[in-house]
Amino acid sequence: MAKSKYEYVRQFEIDDPLLQNCWIVVRVDGKAFQKFTDVHYYMKPNDERGLNLMTKAAQAVMSDCPDIVLAYGQSDEYSFVFHKNCKLYGRRASKILTSVVSLFSSSFTLFWPHFFNVQELKYPPVFEAKVALHPSDTNLRDYLSWRQADCHINNLYNTCLWKLIQERALTPAQAADRLKVVIISVYGILSDKNELKDKDLVHNSSSNPRMNHSTLTKAEKRFSSIILHTDIISNTFWEDYPYILGDKVFK
Amino acid sequence: MAKSKYEYVRQFEIDDPLLQNCWIVVRVDGKAFQKFTDVHYYMKPNDERGLNLMTKAAQAVMSDCPDIVLAYGQSDEYSFVFHKNCKLYGRRASKILTSVVSLFSSSFTLFWPHFFNVQELKYPPVFEAKVALHPSDTNLRDYLSWRQADCHINNLYNTCLWKLIQERALTPAQAADRLKVVIISVYGILSDKNELKDKDLVHNSSSNPRMNHSTLTKAEKRFSSIILHTDIISNTFWEDYPYILGDKVFK
Amino acid sequence: MAKSKYEYVRQFEIDDPLLQNCWIVVRVDGKAFQKFTDVHYYMKPNDERGLNLMTKAAQAVMSDCPDIVLAYGQSDEYSFVFHKNCKLYGRRASKILTSVVSLFSSSFTLFWPHFFNVQELKYPPVFEAKVALHPSDTNLRDYLSWRQADCHINNLYNTCLWKLIQERALTPAQAADRLKVVIISVYGILSDKNELKDKDLVHNSSSNPRMNHSTLTKAEKRFSSIILHTDIISNTFWEDYPYILGDKVFK
Amino acid sequence: MAKSKYEYVRQFEIDDPLLQNCWIVVRVDGKAFQKFTDVHYYMKPNDERGLNLMTKAAQAVMSDCPDIVLAYGQSDEYSFVFHKNCKLYGRRASKILTSVVSLFSSSFTLFWPHFFNVQELKYPPVFEAKVALHPSDTNLRDYLSWRQADCHINNLYNTCLWKLIQERALTPAQAADRLKVVIISVYGILSDKNELKDKDLVHNSSSNPRMNHSTLTKAEKRFSSIILHTDIISNTFWEDYPYILGDKVFK
Repeated sequence: MAKSKYEYVRQFEIDDPLLQNCWIVVRVDGKAFQKFTDVHYYMKPNDERGLNLMTKAAQAVMSDCPDIVLAYGQSDEYSFVFHKNCKLYGRRASKILTSVVSLFSSSFTLFWPHFFNVQELKYPPVFEAKVALHPSDTNLRDYLSWRQADCHINNLYNTCLWKLIQERALTPAQAADRLKVVIISVYGILSDKNELKDKDLVHNSSSNPRMNHSTLTKAEKRFSSIILHTDIISNTFWEDYPYILGDKVFK
Repeated sequence: MAKSKYEYVRQFEIDDPLLQNCWIVVRVDGKAFQKFTDVHYYMKPNDERGLNLMTKAAQAVMSDCPDIVLAYGQSDEYSFVFHKNCKLYGRRASKILTSVVSLFSSSFTLFWPHFFNVQELKYPPVFEAKVALHPSDTNLRDYLSWRQADCHINNLYNTCLWKLIQERALTPAQAADRLKVVIISVYGILSDKNELKDKDLVHNSSSNPRMNHSTLTKAEKRFSSIILHTDIISNTFWEDYPYILGDKVFK
Repeated sequence: MAKSKYEYVRQFEIDDPLLQNCWIVVRVDGKAFQKFTDVHYYMKPNDERGLNLMTKAAQAVMSDCPDIVLAYGQSDEYSFVFHKNCKLYGRRASKILTSVVSLFSSSFTLFWPHFFNVQELKYPPVFEAKVALHPSDTNLRDYLSWRQADCHINNLYNTCLWKLIQERALTPAQAADRLKVVIISVYGILSDKNELKDKDLVHNSSSNPRMNHSTLTKAEKRFSSIILHTDIISNTFWEDYPYILGDKVFK
Repeated sequence: MAKSKYEYVRQFEIDDPLLQNCWIVVRVDGKAFQKFTDVHYYMKPNDERGLNLMTKAAQAVMSDCPDIVLAYGQSDEYSFVFHKNCKLYGRRASKILTSVVSLFSSSFTLFWPHFFNVQELKYPPVFEAKVALHPSDTNLRDYLSWRQADCHINNLYNTCLWKLIQERALTPAQAADRLKVVIISVYGILSDKNELKDKDLVHNSSSNPRMNHSTLTKAEKRFSSIILHTDIISNTFWEDYPYILGDKVFK
């Protein structure tokens, strides 16, 4: 096409290539999802339909992009790991970020009726995303462990909170206040509180925590993703799936 | 919540604040929309339903964000202008980019049936977005003029192309070949070809070009946006709406 | 030359182009100059030899680079203003920053004996530099006003401090303590203290403040710089030298 | 000190933190050193005084900064390797770059007479610097191998060139032309020429190449640096000095 005298403005576009040979992680997060889940009558503390819809949207992203080797999701967030050798869009941060969050958002919206049936989507959901670069495999695994530890802490907290509200008839404020003195110890993480109370509350709350988070990975012949509800902090997972972090060549 | 030993990985997140006192422009673009419009039987060269759906999605973005003073759209793209004084998300590029493209994508998907009725969305649409910084008002206006000039050139080209295909029964390849020798002169933009042919073809194609692009702006009392199909290259528009670029204070 | 298999590492270099159409300001600052001035017996509060050497080094930078339109210096710092249209080194931040600070440092070292005679340089001086981008003329002038206001505040403070030490025989600690209650009012800048004491101390200290800072600019036929000791906060200076901020074309 | 209303301009400073857990390499390069060495009568192809002065300046940089674990120099360039765990200046690129290049420049200038005696420095030398981030140890070693391969290629070329000029009385242009057809094969690097001529020229030129480049490293008890003229491409060097890349903790 003919060039116009205005075209010089192209030079004001921000170029944002990501450093080579680092793992790229894009984390998608629901924006104002407290309100979104209230308005759409999500079951508390965890709504299985909501979690499955998140995973469905994540699978759409994953099948679209061979450079993604792993996805990890919990609550209203999903992290996508792009292989450190990935060359996608010349590793431009804005292109990678926006195509992930766009496909995630339109998939979540499109597949909503498959999970929530007659209950309609009242307004378009919004997800934000940010990008991080992890230079070493250890940094990447620590990132994923961080998200899983966060998942367990939050689940424990939310399960206790809703138990107090639903079974013991406390108000949300009373329940939150009560939990301030409960020690949370999970996966070696300790709060700074030094009294242990409500042991049984915590104990009974930790049933079936694994269903609350999902890991998506691909078989060695790419594209089709597998859903796992497994511990990704321990070495076992990484030993079982060595090809996830294994060397790959991308165009 | 209790902090885990893994939390140090936060430091690998990319921080990307945008320079203060510059106009921020986010341009959303359809990804692989040639295929998308084919698969969804868009009318050629312009599908009014498709253009109106784009504008509906843009309006959703605009009402969500008081910092946007203008939006300009054509074909499968929309540009959003954030006021130079805007403080949204501490001007972090990734937050601004991703919340715009996410809301645009989920709105496009959610409102699809309102425009395309029984014809279903066959797969989730994807939009990419990039960000640019314009230091002066002139740079900003030149950016918008660039997009409008591009709109007219493309419309002229596509209108001619489809006229040759639909009315003169040329194949797409033959039509494209024929247009290589047509000089396009519109709004002062000249191609580098020096022969003028098919004058009537070009002339007849330029009817009603204004409907093919839309400008969204807000009344002085914000939020509700107005749709205009007007020339934004000339001074008239900017003199009629002086408050668009006028000084504003944001929190 | 023949290329080696190692050359791929070039892609790990950081590219850092500066936004077009913004004023570029590089500020060079002495590193650990409190110690440097003590070790080299600088006269307090101001050592004219030291200030003149700084200006000599700044002139070397300025003659080397036609893209610099103004330099402003005080104490152990110098700011260099590159015209907003400048294309030097493709506006790469690191190239601009390092060639300025390198030439400044080697000039300061080379010309030292011209100003300090037999007193030898005991170790190589170090200067740091940072870069800032100013989108508007107002932002640029406010930057320069900020440095001049800082200069006057510091000079006033240091002059009072050394007067108390040298003339009233206070220890440095006593003098600093005493100055905590002195209100400093200069060029419209007010401290948050609300009592006015030691008026004569302040008054007598402000004699000849203009010599303590220097502005370098160029005649319209570039290269040769002029040294001024003038107020650059007021409009007068900018009206007298309109070509400083005037439009220019660089290659 | 009292704050002025102009201080808001601080927000226009560019912040440029370097990614954590990556090796930081700053390469200092002489600017226009062809002319500089001509004007100062450097001996060709290599001037030992010049090389030693470069190394002296590099040692000044290295003793000043405990975070530098290795420096490698040849011709008019020196690369400084900052440990990947280094926290210096919050890893701000501009602070790291400018303090290295400033100290290098003032040291080169200050120590000039120790190496060139009565021959005076005719004008202040200028060095530029750029920064690169290497995520893995392999990337870092490949970077250093690249510089060493470059050193040998250049030395071979320059040695041949000056031999042709000095011993065979060719003009510089004739000599350069002649070398276009010489195959250079050194350290496994092959040019794309496929004819082998002047074997003896090349052979005789490669005597004592090791003196033309220097590696500075520190004993385990830091600060004092050791000068080596050794091959850093082979594994031997890295096996002999394992603590160079070993884990370290910085404040």
